[in-house]
Formats: sequence, C-alpha cells, structure tokens
Amino acid sequence: MDEMAIQDFYPDELNYCYGCGQLNADGLKLRSFWIGEEAVAQFTPRSYHTAIPGYVYGGLIASLIDCHSTATAAAASYQAEGREMGTEPPFRFVTASLHVDYLRPVPMGVVLEIRGRVKELKGRKAVVQSEVFANDEVCARGEVVVVQLPEHMVPKKS
Amino acid sequence: MDEMAIQDFYPDELNYCYGCGQLNADGLKLRSFWIGEEAVAQFTPRSYHTAIPGYVYGGLIASLIDCHSTATAAAASYQAEGREMGTEPPFRFVTASLHVDYLRPVPMGVVLEIRGRVKELKGRKAVVQSEVFANDEVCARGEVVVVQLPEHMVPKKS
Repeated sequence: MDEMAIQDFYPDELNYCYGCGQLNADGLKLRSFWIGEEAVAQFTPRSYHTAIPGYVYGGLIASLIDCHSTATAAAASYQAEGREMGTEPPFRFVTASLHVDYLRPVPMGVVLEIRGRVKELKGRKAVVQSEVFANDEVCARGEVVVVQLPEHMVPKKS
Repeated sequence: MDEMAIQDFYPDELNYCYGCGQLNADGLKLRSFWIGEEAVAQFTPRSYHTAIPGYVYGGLIASLIDCHSTATAAAASYQAEGREMGTEPPFRFVTASLHVDYLRPVPMGVVLEIRGRVKELKGRKAVVQSEVFANDEVCARGEVVVVQLPEHMVPKKS
C-alpha cells in the first residue's frame, strides 16, 4: 500500500520496535491504518509462527494486538486533538498491561486482520480493544492499557 | 544445560511451537526447568528484540510468559498425578487467556529469568502465574489460563 501507516509517523528514534518498527530490519513491521474511528492492520504469519502445527502461535497474536493497540492509541490521540498525524509533538504509546482472550485457534496460511478501537482516552493513558480475525471470524480479543512514553525513555536523536 | 527441560518431554508432533518448540528451527526454543514447586527458564533476548531502543519488546515478554506458563502447567500436572515427566499420557497445554502487567521497562543485554507457579489446577485447566526478572528485579507479571490441548487438535503422528 502507498497509504501512510500510523507507524510511518512514529519518530525515527522510536521506530525500532520488533513488532511494528518500520526501521527494525528483523522485525514484523506491522502496519496499522486509521480508518474513521478504528485502526486496521493485516498480517500474514510466517511459516514458522506455529503453535500446534496448523495453527498460529499465541505469542504472535499477543504481539500483533500489543503493537496494533499502541498505534490505535496514537492515531486516536491525534484525532482527539484535531491534529493531522505527523504534526508535532508526536504520540508514541507503550504498553502497561495486555490481556488476550484466545477465542478459537487461528489457522495458518491466512491473512489475519487486526481491528482496534479506543475504549477510553484520558490524559496520557488509553484503553484499547483489538480483535484478530481470520477468515472474517474473530479468533482473539485483546484489551490493552497503554501510556504515552515517558520523556526520560526517549532516546536522544543521533 | 544437560538437564532435561519440560519441553523435552513434549511429544515430537507437538514440539514445533515458535516460542518453545524444541523442533522449531526458527523459534525461540525456550527451555523451562521444574525445580521443586516452580518452573524456571532463562532467556537472552536477541539484539533485534527491541521496543524503544535499550528496552526489550513487550510482545517477546508476553511470549515468554505464555510458553513458560504452559510448561509450568504440564510439569505440575505430572507432579499432581505422582508421575515422572515423559510417562504416558503426555501433558500439553495451550493458552486460553493471557494477562501481562508490565511493571517496569526490561533492559536489553541481560539474561531474563522467568519463574512460574500453578495457582490453580483443576480438570483440564490450570491458572499459572509467571514473572519475568531482569537483574533480580521483577519486570513483568503474567497470569495465564491454560487448558489441555483438545484431542481433535493433536496432529497425526507421521
């Protein structure tokens, strides 16, 4: 897609996350798109992302929910302030807690869709609900509490 | 270590998990050891397992907690039945729900220790609490509900 993902607006020095950093050469490079009131991402698990053979690894599902939820919070925060993504100052959330309910096994060989919505946005904190779909069926449901990255954790720009 | 890990006793056809399958060549190959009443594992994140630079990716932490907790449940189940690990029938748990509280950022470049204990074991279900330590300080705390793999999901032996 030529469209800009939410992660494309992360500052470079904060764009090395293994799950969604666009500058992490070895990472999953999840890309989430803000569409109206929700964020949507697609991801195709690699052949080795197995749990029981034939099914996708639950830790990968948790990772997708984690990264997608931080992106969802960032996009919703720009929207709440009436700002375009990419305007300063940037929003970058990290995870305080992650809860995932695995509703049904996730089959391998399918493009997964992750959909996230902000349930609550207050101060520097957000609660995001993200669901993972395979073949249009919801397979996992996540609730993630995210907070804006504290200033002292922002690496100095090189 | 020459010692046998809990995962060494998983049946081969169920030992391909990306997080802890000893037969998944591309996976993390987590190894958990049963010591008395708890399971202990060590894992050194790879250089690319970053979140914000300098800190470990939360999705990896969730994955370690996930796999370590299923192993903890398996080992505790053998113990509850008074059986040695590796005796038939084998125990193999999968995750029903995963909750992780990220208590403090996890520094890169440190061997992490994961400690798991069964909080509840009843029928085919267990509730496991696993904590992740860096430099002897607890950084993340997980509670994982696991269930024995349903028979219909066991792949046929080749």
